[in-house]
Amino acid sequence: MSDSMLDAYRQVRGHSRSICAPLETEDYVIQSMPDVSPTRWHLAHTTWFFETFCLKNLPDYQPEQPAFEVLFNSYYNAVGEQFPRERRGLLSRPTVAEVWRYRDQVDEAMIDLLARPDRESIVSDEVLRTGLNHEQQHQELMLTDLLHVFSCNPLHPVYSASAVRDCDPVDEVRWIESPAERIETIGFEETKDGKFCFDNELPRHRVLLSPHAIANRLVTNGEYLDFVEDGGYDDPSYWLSAGWATVQSEAWRAPMYWHLGEEGWYQFTLAGLRPVEENAPVCHLSYFEADAFARWSGCRLPTEFEWEVAVRDSGESIVDAFGSRWQWTASDYAPYPKYTAPEGAIGEYNGKFMCGQKVLRGSSVATPSGHERLSYRNFFPPSMRWQFCGIRLAMDLE
Amino acid sequence: MSDSMLDAYRQVRGHSRSICAPLETEDYVIQSMPDVSPTRWHLAHTTWFFETFCLKNLPDYQPEQPAFEVLFNSYYNAVGEQFPRERRGLLSRPTVAEVWRYRDQVDEAMIDLLARPDRESIVSDEVLRTGLNHEQQHQELMLTDLLHVFSCNPLHPVYSASAVRDCDPVDEVRWIESPAERIETIGFEETKDGKFCFDNELPRHRVLLSPHAIANRLVTNGEYLDFVEDGGYDDPSYWLSAGWATVQSEAWRAPMYWHLGEEGWYQFTLAGLRPVEENAPVCHLSYFEADAFARWSGCRLPTEFEWEVAVRDSGESIVDAFGSRWQWTASDYAPYPKYTAPEGAIGEYNGKFMCGQKVLRGSSVATPSGHERLSYRNFFPPSMRWQFCGIRLAMDLE
Amino acid sequence: MSDSMLDAYRQVRGHSRSICAPLETEDYVIQSMPDVSPTRWHLAHTTWFFETFCLKNLPDYQPEQPAFEVLFNSYYNAVGEQFPRERRGLLSRPTVAEVWRYRDQVDEAMIDLLARPDRESIVSDEVLRTGLNHEQQHQELMLTDLLHVFSCNPLHPVYSASAVRDCDPVDEVRWIESPAERIETIGFEETKDGKFCFDNELPRHRVLLSPHAIANRLVTNGEYLDFVEDGGYDDPSYWLSAGWATVQSEAWRAPMYWHLGEEGWYQFTLAGLRPVEENAPVCHLSYFEADAFARWSGCRLPTEFEWEVAVRDSGESIVDAFGSRWQWTASDYAPYPKYTAPEGAIGEYNGKFMCGQKVLRGSSVATPSGHERLSYRNFFPPSMRWQFCGIRLAMDLE
Amino acid sequence: MSDSMLDAYRQVRGHSRSICAPLETEDYVIQSMPDVSPTRWHLAHTTWFFETFCLKNLPDYQPEQPAFEVLFNSYYNAVGEQFPRERRGLLSRPTVAEVWRYRDQVDEAMIDLLARPDRESIVSDEVLRTGLNHEQQHQELMLTDLLHVFSCNPLHPVYSASAVRDCDPVDEVRWIESPAERIETIGFEETKDGKFCFDNELPRHRVLLSPHAIANRLVTNGEYLDFVEDGGYDDPSYWLSAGWATVQSEAWRAPMYWHLGEEGWYQFTLAGLRPVEENAPVCHLSYFEADAFARWSGCRLPTEFEWEVAVRDSGESIVDAFGSRWQWTASDYAPYPKYTAPEGAIGEYNGKFMCGQKVLRGSSVATPSGHERLSYRNFFPPSMRWQFCGIRLAMDLE
Ligand SMILES: [Fe+3]
Ligand SMILES: [Fe+3]
Ligand SMILES: [Fe+3]
Ligand SMILES: [Fe+3]
Repeated sequence: MSDSMLDAYRQVRGHSRSICAPLETEDYVIQSMPDVSPTRWHLAHTTWFFETFCLKNLPDYQPEQPAFEVLFNSYYNAVGEQFPRERRGLLSRPTVAEVWRYRDQVDEAMIDLLARPDRESIVSDEVLRTGLNHEQQHQELMLTDLLHVFSCNPLHPVYSASAVRDCDPVDEVRWIESPAERIETIGFEETKDGKFCFDNELPRHRVLLSPHAIANRLVTNGEYLDFVEDGGYDDPSYWLSAGWATVQSEAWRAPMYWHLGEEGWYQFTLAGLRPVEENAPVCHLSYFEADAFARWSGCRLPTEFEWEVAVRDSGESIVDAFGSRWQWTASDYAPYPKYTAPEGAIGEYNGKFMCGQKVLRGSSVATPSGHERLSYRNFFPPSMRWQFCGIRLAMDLE
Repeated sequence: MSDSMLDAYRQVRGHSRSICAPLETEDYVIQSMPDVSPTRWHLAHTTWFFETFCLKNLPDYQPEQPAFEVLFNSYYNAVGEQFPRERRGLLSRPTVAEVWRYRDQVDEAMIDLLARPDRESIVSDEVLRTGLNHEQQHQELMLTDLLHVFSCNPLHPVYSASAVRDCDPVDEVRWIESPAERIETIGFEETKDGKFCFDNELPRHRVLLSPHAIANRLVTNGEYLDFVEDGGYDDPSYWLSAGWATVQSEAWRAPMYWHLGEEGWYQFTLAGLRPVEENAPVCHLSYFEADAFARWSGCRLPTEFEWEVAVRDSGESIVDAFGSRWQWTASDYAPYPKYTAPEGAIGEYNGKFMCGQKVLRGSSVATPSGHERLSYRNFFPPSMRWQFCGIRLAMDLE
Repeated sequence: MSDSMLDAYRQVRGHSRSICAPLETEDYVIQSMPDVSPTRWHLAHTTWFFETFCLKNLPDYQPEQPAFEVLFNSYYNAVGEQFPRERRGLLSRPTVAEVWRYRDQVDEAMIDLLARPDRESIVSDEVLRTGLNHEQQHQELMLTDLLHVFSCNPLHPVYSASAVRDCDPVDEVRWIESPAERIETIGFEETKDGKFCFDNELPRHRVLLSPHAIANRLVTNGEYLDFVEDGGYDDPSYWLSAGWATVQSEAWRAPMYWHLGEEGWYQFTLAGLRPVEENAPVCHLSYFEADAFARWSGCRLPTEFEWEVAVRDSGESIVDAFGSRWQWTASDYAPYPKYTAPEGAIGEYNGKFMCGQKVLRGSSVATPSGHERLSYRNFFPPSMRWQFCGIRLAMDLE
Repeated sequence: MSDSMLDAYRQVRGHSRSICAPLETEDYVIQSMPDVSPTRWHLAHTTWFFETFCLKNLPDYQPEQPAFEVLFNSYYNAVGEQFPRERRGLLSRPTVAEVWRYRDQVDEAMIDLLARPDRESIVSDEVLRTGLNHEQQHQELMLTDLLHVFSCNPLHPVYSASAVRDCDPVDEVRWIESPAERIETIGFEETKDGKFCFDNELPRHRVLLSPHAIANRLVTNGEYLDFVEDGGYDDPSYWLSAGWATVQSEAWRAPMYWHLGEEGWYQFTLAGLRPVEENAPVCHLSYFEADAFARWSGCRLPTEFEWEVAVRDSGESIVDAFGSRWQWTASDYAPYPKYTAPEGAIGEYNGKFMCGQKVLRGSSVATPSGHERLSYRNFFPPSMRWQFCGIRLAMDLE
């Protein structure tokens, strides 16, 4: 076990470094909006996690940089003072080089720890896996945040020319039907789904599903463009009240990163500014937009339970469940029956955010491989657009 | 049917006038925060509803005050332009006397209409009942809004000295148990629950309930004071993240309208400023506070389905289900399966608010008698405190 | 002396009542923006001034309404706690009738006091005159505030149909020249200018004037319309930087209360909504607009000293110095050399506002007769538009 | 002349590079508040000035980076579109290395240009001197902005350990008296004051001075500490109304960068966090604080004319006129009589900011040597604190 844990540690930590390969030093320090963190902060914060929840269990561990405890704590009230989130972009120090040094120090100590025969008495597999999954979550955020940072720059910097691929034409949607009311069991199942899940995927429990159908594929840019051109952003009847208010106050006319040029719509991507590709799954839209598009289509969004059961049961007939776009669901982010948050600081991870957010299922092009999971519950406020989110439609059946 | 409709019309419209009996002219025009509407506005807006959805169906109906259509429209995008909600308190005209005149004119025309033998071809029972229930909702808002208006005044005006009664001591909570998983049918049932419901109470549908128990009575001021004095507002571990942020930004230390005096806590009420009464059900708190109190108590809030089933099945063993405090539930305000909004302007009533709100069940001291209903779903954002909201606890059973 | 003081008291206090003659009760309570106070507040606050600075000197005086001391104090830190300015519109009580009663009580006590042979040992002429001039200032504010309140109402209420008169065509501007550098004495001169001035008009002192000319009359609506139609609001080169920022953020396209209708520009006035009258002096514009118009005209605004000397020396050849529009000057509102604020609460009157404001000279149609004075210094922030302000041009001479 | 211009160009441009010697790459890109610009932006913007107003006069000049015209334009509406000021910190590109390359390219082209015999027909001495003085202004801003950036960092980065020197004890203030009213001539005088001034220092003109005295030295930290400890920040009677409002809203308790530690007051400086030195001139305070301190002292601030005459006439008996702290004056920043802004974009330099700002005279430790001038008029809003500003007192004489 320890060996595979060591491998996993090396693999995950190394992937963070790979993500940074195309970056200039200056790219690491910008916070382009309060939701965005500088890349340098992600690198240090994920390291802080291992230092705080693993290395500090060692009786003789001395942090080399005690100030980092405050600087790179995020939202863990139980761990102490935090540097304010919206001020992360005000820090020029520690430098990027110093942060890489901090990572190296912690990695060295972690690798020593992982090699110790008594390791499990010092830090549990559960905590280690949480740390690795936490770093993977931040790897996705690093990409989404870099996209936002670059999008603010009129020079249209390119993160990687190969970050966006061409798409083939898509077929008509096929509807995967679930024609009868049924009870299904939902949530993480260790024997089938692997060794790790977040607390919000438990307890496994039974839900009642109504007759419904779910689309085999995601909504494309071309389909979404029909909504835009049909006046979707001008007609309040498609929108939730809060969504319509946001359309007005933010002057939304299209998904985030879309720009109307003289020759049509362009989209800013990690590969720079490119014409909107009709066949690609639509991306970077809010729950409000996903919901309005669904209403305009005469459909609705799936619940997270419909999604989980359909993906579990449909094999290859369902496309892009993972690795393309997070899929907004109709479900509010709420605890599963009998959910209890873990004790201590790690218990602050998920439960306290269960208010005012919608669940997204699947994963995206930005999700590191190996991080996706059938029972995975991502969540964001309904106005959020900077993640790689898209739409899978559903509908009621009689 | 028309006779009883006429009676109902007279009764409901007359009740609005009774609510205003203690008021000075000046009290009708104040908007003390954006959520509050001036009493005068409520009186005119409920009248506008009958004019717009009933009288305008008459081929020869001429509104005496066409400008009122914009002034007293609220959120019905389909009906046309609206005067901005947060500016309702900027209007000194029409005067209160003119608004009473407007009510009289519309009442006269409505009573003529209700007496017509062909009335049902002009306006349906459904629309009439919607209008009456709509007015009843605004009657509750008139009282909650007046309480807020008066609360801003250092002179502590008294709406009615008899608005608050003394309370007897309460017994220990008894838990009404539902020990097995079960499927129950939820939603408005015409044959048992009466002639009218709002669209959000339908379709009637089946839900799966986990084993749980629900408290037979509401949480008292005395019990809530224990939470306050135990440092409930100082410890983030009891709070949702958004709730804790609100506690900080709003400097909450106790429920709304509570003031710490030299001799203890006082509460501003419709009967003026009074010492907090230990035995009374706690009131004027947000979902965040209800949820934090429940967590501190080792309990949780009930779901709206648990609430509906318990009240349906428990007879007199459940106390204060109606007529005391609206009861926050753990449920997000979401459409029932296969819900569709009605066509047209009336369809804007409920569905478009199904985002970011929590369901409250029961009714309050401010709810007009006859307006409560087992399947009634009230809803407010989780930070809202100015309604008469309280707490009924629940817990999981193994 | 006491007799004339009694007459003055009765005259000034009576004028406040006259201003209210056209009002409905509802009109007295609205605060349409933070700068505006409800009429009822003006009536009570001016009364509070006499109670606080005159009646409370009587050893046995008992205020009937001690709570009014906080409610109707304005900005006098030395007098104690104040009810927050921006919340004046949240109060429905005391009622308008109660405020009139408060005025009657104080008037009765004041008239008794003014009749006492030892009156001057209790309250000085200086304080009485300050109280009367203070009330006159609020009389002007009552009118400007009512105009703003009514302007928010889509019903376009008319304060008084006779509040606006037609204007005759105007002649070309004549320039009153002051061709040589000269030293002049500025400020209030008791022997010539009367018995009273505010502290900011003193000390009388000498200033150095450059060669210049000043316009004999005010800028008209027609002339200002040329600026509007010449793109004045679209070209940053006419504007101060802060002015241009305000034009952008407030979307200014014309003076306040102007509305572009299908048949041209309309202006909301105390006589209701009327076509903009070309010959009337332009009104309700900010310093930024006055300054931009002057720059567009190839002129500048006069300094307050140029204004004072020109009006002093020019007799009837200068028109509308008083009683039409306050005239923005180029002068920042600063203390005169050796200025010191009076001791005590009355010393808070003027000096502490000497920052970030521009001086206006003359008086307006809303100024009560007898309140204007050659040395009078009105002052407002440069973005302020709701007063009756206009433009008199000046220019440098070689 | 061209030779000395070339020397000046090399000297000034080289000084910008010296200022950056202690910096890490990350330090160049942070914008810690809207008033602050990233160092990298200052370096590019000053370069853009030479490119725009000098090199573009060359018929065949091709900018290598046309996008820089928008990115590094600041407030020159006449030159075209500007990247919004408050978003300068969102840009990670161009990198610091690319900006140095941009500087090198422009320097090379400028040096070629300066060597041309026909140089004066392409670009005037006036424009070149404006460009050099503009760069010197930004050199001062680079230091003040870096201090602010570093001050946001809990690691307390040190810009240069030698940036702050110890101070000797100071003597009692001596008052330089001007006991009679007198007329003096003010403004830039080419024959005595050098070759260059900004437009706001002209026209030279006569002013009338009242009898007064001015302090021979600046107020020290120790003297200011007396004000702090005497409750200066708790008593509204010392403060302008707008100043008192700022004290409340910003929770000011001491000058900017002061922190109360367990052993007394500390001050964050370019040399890091250090105990407040009693003998050093007080620094980093707003006009509001300077004015309140003066009132508490029974003095006032000098006018800018009193300052200029005193420094002109007093030789060495006046200390720290230059090179220590900018000195707040009582004067509003206003145009001199007959001032006209230059034509074209360069005319946007000063005149349009003449509203709502106070004049500061002298220069500071951060001012590059050779940039100070007797007639120099610096200006900032009265709440501004991040520059190196201090206090020189004055008083009226009878
Ligand atoms: Fe994290
Ligand atoms: Fe309504
Ligand atoms: Fe006043
Ligand atoms: Fe510049």
